[in-house]
Parts: sequence; C-alpha cells; structure tokens
Amino acid sequence: MARKVAIVTGIPGVGKTTVCKETEALAAQEGIKLKVLNFGDVMVEIMERSGRPLHRDRLRKMDISSQKVIQAQAAAKLAKAIESADEHVIIDTHMIIRTGTGYLPGLPKHVLDVLKPDFLVLIETDPEEIAARRTKDLAAGERLRDVRVMEELKEELEFSRMVASACSVLTGAPVVIIKNPTGGQKEAAKALLELFRG
Amino acid sequence: MARKVAIVTGIPGVGKTTVCKETEALAAQEGIKLKVLNFGDVMVEIMERSGRPLHRDRLRKMDISSQKVIQAQAAAKLAKAIESADEHVIIDTHMIIRTGTGYLPGLPKHVLDVLKPDFLVLIETDPEEIAARRTKDLAAGERLRDVRVMEELKEELEFSRMVASACSVLTGAPVVIIKNPTGGQKEAAKALLELFRG
Amino acid sequence: MARKVAIVTGIPGVGKTTVCKETEALAAQEGIKLKVLNFGDVMVEIMERSGRPLHRDRLRKMDISSQKVIQAQAAAKLAKAIESADEHVIIDTHMIIRTGTGYLPGLPKHVLDVLKPDFLVLIETDPEEIAARRTKDLAAGERLRDVRVMEELKEELEFSRMVASACSVLTGAPVVIIKNPTGGQKEAAKALLELFRG
Repeated sequence: MARKVAIVTGIPGVGKTTVCKETEALAAQEGIKLKVLNFGDVMVEIMERSGRPLHRDRLRKMDISSQKVIQAQAAAKLAKAIESADEHVIIDTHMIIRTGTGYLPGLPKHVLDVLKPDFLVLIETDPEEIAARRTKDLAAGERLRDVRVMEELKEELEFSRMVASACSVLTGAPVVIIKNPTGGQKEAAKALLELFRG
Repeated sequence: MARKVAIVTGIPGVGKTTVCKETEALAAQEGIKLKVLNFGDVMVEIMERSGRPLHRDRLRKMDISSQKVIQAQAAAKLAKAIESADEHVIIDTHMIIRTGTGYLPGLPKHVLDVLKPDFLVLIETDPEEIAARRTKDLAAGERLRDVRVMEELKEELEFSRMVASACSVLTGAPVVIIKNPTGGQKEAAKALLELFRG
Repeated sequence: MARKVAIVTGIPGVGKTTVCKETEALAAQEGIKLKVLNFGDVMVEIMERSGRPLHRDRLRKMDISSQKVIQAQAAAKLAKAIESADEHVIIDTHMIIRTGTGYLPGLPKHVLDVLKPDFLVLIETDPEEIAARRTKDLAAGERLRDVRVMEELKEELEFSRMVASACSVLTGAPVVIIKNPTGGQKEAAKALLELFRG
C-alpha cells in the first residue's frame, strides 16, 4: 500500500486538532503508521529560527506578503518531511485564514504543488456548536454577538468549501467532508483513518 | 464557424444523458454536425481493453489513484477524438463524482488541459425532482430517506457549481446552467444546441 | 511601502464604480498615491483602435471567443500600465460577466497571471438593494419581475464568490469582501483604502 498525504482543514472551533490527535492514537492502536504535521507550528518555528519570534495567534495579523513568504517556506519544509517519511502523513492546517483584511487561502497553488495531497479534508461542525466552542475560549463576561457571528461562521464554512473545490480541481484530489459534532471525535477520527486504508 | 467543444455535466438524476441525446437528435434535424462522447464509456472501454473489465456502476467504487490513471487515459483518448472530428463535440461527464470517500473532481486541471472546452455546462434540476427520479431506480420497497437525501442533493449541486467555477477560471470557458425540469428536456436540448450556433 | 494592486469587482448594481471613485478621492485627500483603471474601458478602447468600435453595453453580447481575445489584450495593456505606475493600482472589473450563454469569468488564469493582484475584492450589496438600483436604470413602465430577479441576483453573488475563491487559490491573494449598503459608500471606500496602508 502506497503512502498517502491528507491535508486536514477546518475553521477554528470545529475541533480539527482534536480529531487529528484521535486519529493518530487510533492509527497507533491499529498498527497503521501515521504522522500528523501542523502547518502553523512549522510557520512559528521558521519565525523563531529567523530571529523574529512571534506568538502563534499573531500569525494571522501579519501583513499578507510576509505571511505568504513564510507559508512558502513552511510548505517546502513539510514537503521534505513528507518525502523522507515512511508513513502516512496528515497535514493539519486551514483552507482559509480569516485575517483583518479578508480570507487568505491556506493552500494556494504554489503550496499545493509542493505538498501534492491525496485527500483534501474539511472537518465541519454546525455553526451553532462552533459558536458555543468559541465562546468558551473568551474571557469571562465577553459574549459573541449571536446573529452576526452565526452569519460569519456560515460564510467561513462556505468559503472553505469553495476554496477546497478549487484546490481539488488543481490537484485532482477529492474533497472529503468529515462531520465532527460534539462528542463525535472518535467517529470523525475513524472516518479520517479510513482514507489511509484504501 | 469554428468547431466547438462543450463539456456537459450533471449529478445522477438530472437527466443529463437524456438531454444530450435530445440535443444530438435536434442537431441532426437541423443539419448541425454534432457528436456526443461519453467520458464514462471511454473509461469502461479502457478497463476492458486492459483486461480488467469492470461494471460501470463500480467505477466510482475504485480506489482513487486507479480512478485518476484511467481518467487521464480517457481524457487523452477523447482529446484525440475531438482533434480528428470535423463536427461539434459534447462530452457527457460529471463535474464531481461522489465516491465512498468524498467528491472526486471529474475535470481536474490535467483533464481540462487536454480537453480544452469552450463551454462548461451544468444540467440542473430541483433536488425534489432528482430524489423522485433516483427513487424510481431503486428496488421495490427501498425508499430514500427524505431529509438527509435532500441535504445531500443540495450539497452535490452546490459542489458541482463550485468545482465548475474553478474549471472556468482555469480554462476561461463560461459556466452555462441549463435547467431540466420534468418534461423540459426538449427546451434544455434547444438551449444546449444554441451554444454551437454562435 | 511596496506598491499594491487590488482587483475590485462586483455585479452590476452593487455600486462598485462609485466606491472606486470615492476611494480615489479619499486617497488624494490623504496623500496616498492611487490610480483606478477600468478593465471594460480598456476593452472598449482596444475595439475602437482596431476599427471595430462597439458600445460598452454590447461588449457582453459579443461571441465568447472574441471576448476572450480582447480580454487578453486588455490584460496585457493593464499589466504594462501597472508596471510603469509608481502608485497603488485598483483595477475596476467583474469577477463574472453574465452573458446570454452563461457566466464568463472576468479573471481567467491567463489574465490573473499577467495582472498579479495582491487583493481580490468583492463589493457586495443585499440583493434587494441591487434590484432597487437596477430598476432605476430601466425605462419608465418596465419593472423587474421580483422573485426571479431575486433568485438570479443571489446566483450571481454566489458565483462571484466561487470564482473569487478559485482566483484566490491560483494567485495566493486574499478574497476581501466589502459591503456597500445604500449610503455606505464612504465606509466602503475607507475599507478599500485600508488595504493599501499595510
């Protein structure tokens, strides 16, 4: 069986990283060799080594041309890691990054060209659940304004699918939607691991 | 008038093949030279010649990397047929193929690059009508679970449009939506034939 | 600060050109060097010089292959203008052009490759307001048929986002949505100018 690369994406609050960790655990349990690499971690690492350390949450507030440069460097580094790996690889990242000035594509053509994914995965959750999860991360007393937040979340989910569709046409890789309702992370991990069995 | 190539797509149940046949008949009637080629047929043919015959319905259950190889071979074969044709060509195929593991793009970049379409056509029908048509194809006693099916159909139609949009940006060809309500196949065929008159 | 290029798009009736003009005025007021170039104007100019003058409103009724040729020529001309400019550039154009036969992409790959945008801007307005604005442009007595028009406008807005998403993946440029409700053009211009401050 050939080694496969799945790019796993999801907007903040869908539980993407949890699902990736569950999948890693499940793979270990079943003796399937699988490694999860985090795109954002690699970007932060590159910043640190370059002597411009940056807190992770501030990555999305960087100006766009700097973001692009680091994005390309991270992609090159991940491509090397993929090449030298003798196991399946999950790349944990974003389809879109909501910045102050718009939706930045997490997987522009030049990144796809080097990562060569076999699967483009969208982890999705209902907007209501995402809002609930995001609210938990706020300081006490803060509250997400419901109607506008709901609209924004729907827009983010919609743009994720649109951008995924474009990535799919460029790479030929299928778009795989995996639902992650509250309490469903084990089911989601199972569905994700399924991709590597083929 | 230059020879033109329209890629005609639609999810199962929209009546795509019927519309293509009506268009072929209408063209013959009006003395417009037009040929319909079916992408799936060519894929099945390639499988048969390679000594791995496969029932058509099982194509979508093949593993994805094998699908991709045959997809590329079929595209190359169709490109040759287009080149040697002295008539307009309709390619009857899918914008997305719903497989067990996700939406596979029917027209990834490498396929578009060789087919060079002038038009990207989406045949569309209301989800309710598609569900009714699909139900007819089921064995007696089977029934499509309404709410979930309706949601899935909307998702398939939505992804078809998203993928078509990406194909349009890559090729410069317009996305043409042709509605095919029940009883409307002659109108749909007329609209489709219209593309070749320009 | 580096010179930047924003492609500003919107369907007829969203007030795109008004927002562009407001932005130009605001930039002048603040001493920010900024030039607005109109893609359609350049296309009309090319037609005139070629001895085939054409009224602007008829551009979208041209046959598609001729449209594509002029589109490519206009893009090349704009790319030269961008190169020689020592100021920021806004290109006022369309993400999609609704023609008699479908949605033609205003920014196909070959156009994006030469324009190299830093930002892909969608000016958006609620369908109800767009319909109201479009109705004003009609001859007395004419009326837009409400339900169908509303559906078509939603479809145009949806396709604009889908096509923008594909452009974003190809270029790496973010999709920036700027709302332009009635009376909000100054706010919209402010948001647009913000892109060039970075």
